[in-house]
Amino acid sequence: MTLVVERNCECGPALALEDVRAAAARIAGHVVATPLLEAPLLNEELGFRLLLKAECLQLTGSFKVRGAFNQILQLSEQERLRGVVALSSGNHAQAVAYASKTLDAAAVIVMPDDAPAVKISRTRRFGAEVVTYHGESEDREFVARKVVSDRGLRLIHPYDDPRTIAGQGTVGLEIYEQTAHRNLAPDAIVVACGGGGLAAGIALTGELYAQAPQVFTAEPVSFNDMQRSLAWGAIVASERRSGSICDALAAASPGVATFPILHGRHAEGLSAADAEVEAAMAFAACCFNLALEPGGAIALACALQERDRFAGKTVVVVASGGNVGTEDFAKMIQRGAAYVQAAANSERPLFGMTALI
Amino acid sequence: MTLVVERNCECGPALALEDVRAAAARIAGHVVATPLLEAPLLNEELGFRLLLKAECLQLTGSFKVRGAFNQILQLSEQERLRGVVALSSGNHAQAVAYASKTLDAAAVIVMPDDAPAVKISRTRRFGAEVVTYHGESEDREFVARKVVSDRGLRLIHPYDDPRTIAGQGTVGLEIYEQTAHRNLAPDAIVVACGGGGLAAGIALTGELYAQAPQVFTAEPVSFNDMQRSLAWGAIVASERRSGSICDALAAASPGVATFPILHGRHAEGLSAADAEVEAAMAFAACCFNLALEPGGAIALACALQERDRFAGKTVVVVASGGNVGTEDFAKMIQRGAAYVQAAANSERPLFGMTALI
Repeated sequence: MTLVVERNCECGPALALEDVRAAAARIAGHVVATPLLEAPLLNEELGFRLLLKAECLQLTGSFKVRGAFNQILQLSEQERLRGVVALSSGNHAQAVAYASKTLDAAAVIVMPDDAPAVKISRTRRFGAEVVTYHGESEDREFVARKVVSDRGLRLIHPYDDPRTIAGQGTVGLEIYEQTAHRNLAPDAIVVACGGGGLAAGIALTGELYAQAPQVFTAEPVSFNDMQRSLAWGAIVASERRSGSICDALAAASPGVATFPILHGRHAEGLSAADAEVEAAMAFAACCFNLALEPGGAIALACALQERDRFAGKTVVVVASGGNVGTEDFAKMIQRGAAYVQAAANSERPLFGMTALI
Repeated sequence: MTLVVERNCECGPALALEDVRAAAARIAGHVVATPLLEAPLLNEELGFRLLLKAECLQLTGSFKVRGAFNQILQLSEQERLRGVVALSSGNHAQAVAYASKTLDAAAVIVMPDDAPAVKISRTRRFGAEVVTYHGESEDREFVARKVVSDRGLRLIHPYDDPRTIAGQGTVGLEIYEQTAHRNLAPDAIVVACGGGGLAAGIALTGELYAQAPQVFTAEPVSFNDMQRSLAWGAIVASERRSGSICDALAAASPGVATFPILHGRHAEGLSAADAEVEAAMAFAACCFNLALEPGGAIALACALQERDRFAGKTVVVVASGGNVGTEDFAKMIQRGAAYVQAAANSERPLFGMTALI
């Protein structure tokens, strides 16, 4: 069911906090600072202080635009004009398409044909050319590399590139500033994890704090390759490529650039089932008035299950994205609310917060 | 169907920008500055620049907490300890309950028995005593005044009080700062209107701009008393008390304190039907990743219908609240999305933006 992958890291010198700071200066004006939200009634129910970093309110609806700008702004003019390629199930696609349009670069996006229709159509509307492949049978890296070599374009990796990681890490800088501004010292930061770019970038900002918050990665139970890799101490891949509702988190294994950063900083993996993700989407809608996509709600789903561990603590949860079709979203939060109601009288005290739904 | 109400204003000296500034200083630290969001693809479709002021992300899920804090912070210690009364269909209720709890005041909330269950239960969870009345047959002011006289409590009016208006006006200060920061000069601000507290408060901030943005009030078509009053030049009341999905906007007539402020500054009324409100809720979910309640989406519904008038302009739309039950919310955005799809091929180019849903 699993295989251990050995790859050599081709990433050059180790990434550091300074790279994240440089990225923040570079992308300022192109992205927005997203709010750190709090819901007093939910805190009371949970028994810990939950701060939600609403990256679903970022331009293009996810944090991905940070890494995309940090990448494209570092291209030479010649590279930029020739164009870029991105392989993505959706959020990275829209981010690269939007950043390319803003910066006058051409963009080709390689997407699985089972990506949500809304993500494909929005990517096209941002002016990008979309090339689709069959998600289960074709290797997306092969398809993308073929476009790169055929057309001489520059690949913008969705996570396993230091410029991507540094860009995503600017989320962590904002978390630091926003918690410091409120005189808060977060004990933990829970972050959605596909290939680990966002989690690794945020982990780089740990040294800003007097005591670095513990970083937890959040994955679907069926795609918990980072959780298993962190527990094992080496990269473990999953053979599955599709089947989770978290389409944004379909990377088959931790990145060779992201894993050492997380492992070296003692990050720990968490995971949640689809039903728990839908319940978290319902909570995000009713307690924070946010519409999250499944992958954007998985960190919240994982955090809601750790009430014992987090009791009395201050926990930042990153709501990483919100790109989901309206009809799918409505059905998911309906199922999520029903799951919460059904669990209220069961032995799962976790989701007993029916009065908030 | 309508009656003209003549009342004397008992509000003392005219409210001014300075009162809003004083309110902002007073409530700082108790409320959050909400973001001004933008969706590039939606702008492109609309043909104007739409900036969404996300007050649904305010503590307790609506702007109402601003006025509530500005009121309770000005009570004497004796008044505060004796307690306050609020009459509200929900958002003002939660706001007064939350502010009272934070400031150690007792709170009694008078609510219609047909208010959304989620609003009643959340008000109770904030520690307030809830007294209900029959929304269609009983006069809420009478019920509230009886509680005031029986118990010697202080009434916190939801809109028709200068301290409430000044508190809500702090939304306008933030809009000014956030647009100035981006070098934008908004041409218009569209604001939900029940009794008009928020709209009047924002109108007071118009003089901050080189040219004051035109203020538009937004109401359900069946409760457009402010629209008709502004057109007529005097306060016109509606006889209906319930029946709109916008439970937050059930005030029967403009306030005697709010109307002169809006009328004197040449505000204009807009209105939208329930189906258009649900469509706006669907757009808020898919384009901004926000969950709005109907009353919180009505300004967006009205703005989306004014594409001709707003062509090429910069328009701030206030998304005033997000307190709605998850099941109701899911059904409303499903109907809203279906309405948009159905309208796509009709002669209503307004909601032809199906690719974004």
